[in-house]
Amino acid sequence: MGQVAAIIGGGVIGGGWAARFALNGWAVRVFDPDPEASRKIGEVLENARRSLPGLGNVALPQEGVISFHPTVAEAVAGAAWVQESVPERLESKQKVYAEIMAHVGDETIVGSSTSGYKPSELQAGQPRAEQIVVTHPFNPVYLLPLVELVTTPINHDVLIARAKDILTTLGMFPLHLKHEIDAHVADRFLEAVWREALWLVKDGIATTEEIDNAIRYGFGLRWAQMGLFETYRIAGGEAGMRHFISQFGPALQWPWTKLMDVPELTDELIDMIAEQSDAQSGHYSIRELERIRDANLVSKIRGLYRTDWGAGAIQRKHDRVIETAAGLKRHVDELDDLSQPVLTAHRAVPLEWLDYNGHMTESRYLEAFADATDRFMLMIGCDEQYIAHGGSYFTAETHIRHIDEAHAGAIIIIRTQVLQGEGKKMHLFHEMREGTRLVATGEHFLLHVSLESRRSEPPAPHVEAALIKVAEAHAALPRPEGAGQSIGAKT
Amino acid sequence: MGQVAAIIGGGVIGGGWAARFALNGWAVRVFDPDPEASRKIGEVLENARRSLPGLGNVALPQEGVISFHPTVAEAVAGAAWVQESVPERLESKQKVYAEIMAHVGDETIVGSSTSGYKPSELQAGQPRAEQIVVTHPFNPVYLLPLVELVTTPINHDVLIARAKDILTTLGMFPLHLKHEIDAHVADRFLEAVWREALWLVKDGIATTEEIDNAIRYGFGLRWAQMGLFETYRIAGGEAGMRHFISQFGPALQWPWTKLMDVPELTDELIDMIAEQSDAQSGHYSIRELERIRDANLVSKIRGLYRTDWGAGAIQRKHDRVIETAAGLKRHVDELDDLSQPVLTAHRAVPLEWLDYNGHMTESRYLEAFADATDRFMLMIGCDEQYIAHGGSYFTAETHIRHIDEAHAGAIIIIRTQVLQGEGKKMHLFHEMREGTRLVATGEHFLLHVSLESRRSEPPAPHVEAALIKVAEAHAALPRPEGAGQSIGAKT
Repeated sequence: MGQVAAIIGGGVIGGGWAARFALNGWAVRVFDPDPEASRKIGEVLENARRSLPGLGNVALPQEGVISFHPTVAEAVAGAAWVQESVPERLESKQKVYAEIMAHVGDETIVGSSTSGYKPSELQAGQPRAEQIVVTHPFNPVYLLPLVELVTTPINHDVLIARAKDILTTLGMFPLHLKHEIDAHVADRFLEAVWREALWLVKDGIATTEEIDNAIRYGFGLRWAQMGLFETYRIAGGEAGMRHFISQFGPALQWPWTKLMDVPELTDELIDMIAEQSDAQSGHYSIRELERIRDANLVSKIRGLYRTDWGAGAIQRKHDRVIETAAGLKRHVDELDDLSQPVLTAHRAVPLEWLDYNGHMTESRYLEAFADATDRFMLMIGCDEQYIAHGGSYFTAETHIRHIDEAHAGAIIIIRTQVLQGEGKKMHLFHEMREGTRLVATGEHFLLHVSLESRRSEPPAPHVEAALIKVAEAHAALPRPEGAGQSIGAKT
Repeated sequence: MGQVAAIIGGGVIGGGWAARFALNGWAVRVFDPDPEASRKIGEVLENARRSLPGLGNVALPQEGVISFHPTVAEAVAGAAWVQESVPERLESKQKVYAEIMAHVGDETIVGSSTSGYKPSELQAGQPRAEQIVVTHPFNPVYLLPLVELVTTPINHDVLIARAKDILTTLGMFPLHLKHEIDAHVADRFLEAVWREALWLVKDGIATTEEIDNAIRYGFGLRWAQMGLFETYRIAGGEAGMRHFISQFGPALQWPWTKLMDVPELTDELIDMIAEQSDAQSGHYSIRELERIRDANLVSKIRGLYRTDWGAGAIQRKHDRVIETAAGLKRHVDELDDLSQPVLTAHRAVPLEWLDYNGHMTESRYLEAFADATDRFMLMIGCDEQYIAHGGSYFTAETHIRHIDEAHAGAIIIIRTQVLQGEGKKMHLFHEMREGTRLVATGEHFLLHVSLESRRSEPPAPHVEAALIKVAEAHAALPRPEGAGQSIGAKT
């Protein structure tokens, strides 16, 4: 992309934004007076590099350069996007905005990470205030897709559309809120839950650990995929949403929350929470907890990727956007040179592909090869629509040589040679490399089938023609080393 | 297990309990005056059969029989557990309890699925009230591990311990709350969020879909793995929990929630929510939404299984408990007959293993074989502790024949023949069957390595000795059909 983002304030949130921008190919210019800023952002970036690139199945663009600048003026120069993440004090934010707005271009979008203030409070009294919006992200910013984009009537539609576009190209989901309120939407829920949790701890009903377990073993699992209303829609069953909600009427008057009242955060309550939290999680350092969290999030988002739902569906769309930049094609006719093996994968090894040996586990080699086969099928016209009409390929036989290790975040490419392609038969040879290093080979024999009869039958003419075209072009290639090999020969 | 559970009230929740018990091998006796009860429970059971057995890596016991009974007395006869899930009206619940308590044995645990009532309210006036507890589950009961076990001082420790044991053997997580309050713990959070959500919809700040997106793209993803406090502990960073909470003090006084006030559920508000929900999810039927939800939950819980965290860690522990009943061993010395291929897997095909062709996808064949290899490694002493000390096996080469299809929930077994086992070399041949039907074979050549040098080296003597023992016992077996085959030979 080659665009420039300025990060004003580089804590956990600013650092997360810096990582999100840089890993998506933006040059990032940071202003933060904290002498430790560079170290702190480096730590966030290290976590992000392990986890973000492998979230999808397509490689991100070349990482952008992060630089540090002594003044706001220098940091924002030439920036298409300025993201402010300074501490939550309105007066100091307003001072920062005065400096930002004095130096940004007319087209620059200025987003605030504020969790509490309304955009009108940040816009008040600023020149070109119509360029200021709230873009409130969620920690870890480099993994969670949600950004609350809160605007006021002075923000123009063109700028809002551009802001949405940019956030989307960062793999995020901009939730556009047209009506500003204190704390926007998501944090109102967090605040309600937080206040209730303080009561439960204070009253000795449950410890911090018990509360966390009540969340993560129950509704937390539900809410990672559907939210509140869609979940209740299901609970209502065939009787429908209207019937379901009506039942809730009386409960609203019952003492089912303490939230008509606000707990006082005394020193005693703070001590109680801090001690319970130590007992619960104190055996892990924050860095360890961050890495555990990131591994869990990657695993869940990739799980949802497979079901094409929620945060996984967002990631799938993002992959579709970046695949061209990664050099991947959707049809063999788009290839410049048919005589060479076809690029069928360009991706990073996801964090969830590691095993107890600390490297990509064997079944994920086959997952990568299978995805490469899917890409090749797509490229000869065996696409989603074709499959929906009942034609597909089944793999009959697979031979993998695990030649070298691959680690989380490693960029791997797969090139595919057609050894045979005619009639029902498709015989593919994949080579997986990290840079020039050969990591593995996968040889696969597939048969075209009818998904109705579950028996082999010839593909549609346009699919067969595309396959034959590649097979003929590849016929002149030397047979790859390892093709046709058997394990028995070796032992 | 062969125990009997009585399900009193067979709606979505009662049906979920019936499925949870039956799929874990309990005989289930249902009482529900609804003439549709059998059909409704059948539908829940169908969803549960698709999703629960493949949640872990070990097969559940033989499914128990579900029978329907015309009276409470008949249903509860001989039951070790009675689960009441009748509608939430205290008076009708008390009538049901009178009938239950008149017919249950002295040892029977009587659990209520109530989300609102306190156990003392259910115990009041009942004979043998000390057998009554609240066991409040979460929908879908067959997949979510959380059960709030709420007791009063009249419940004896022995009964409470037994209740926890039974819930744990069902793969659930009993969260024992010793202080009863209205709505227990989890539903207090749900109620707080629900009330806040009603305000946001009513005030036109966000639609039901926007609210769901604010949850599932952000904190919902976090809460599926860590809850509130552990998440905030990370957000606080190195400054610690105490520092983090202190910052929250002022916010408690800010208007960040509407919850000092309770919204009135007018017809107008109900209409608004029902219409927004239709616009959001109306293109799916409830059955479709249930299946989407279940696929997502399975995917997430299995993701957490891989990271051994949260709900996935619960499932792992459960697998450890049921593996003996599934016939799986932890050491070759436990085998009765060393001369035959070793049982290395007995499991159901997880829902997340399906692909666009509607069957187990190719890479999951290798995942199943790799897990079988792991089991075999464990059985020759290459266990977690051994690996932590730096020895392990790396797979160098794999040959899979995909002979037949397998579908979600199919029970597969893998038996493993050692073709060679001496020094650094281990050559295994796995056969995967569904019943007697051969589904696939996997041939794998592995080398013992040092995890430090990443080079091959001989295993520890006790590991090599165990491997040689099996290899020698298997030497008399015929070479399996397909061993040593190459793909090239075929095409």
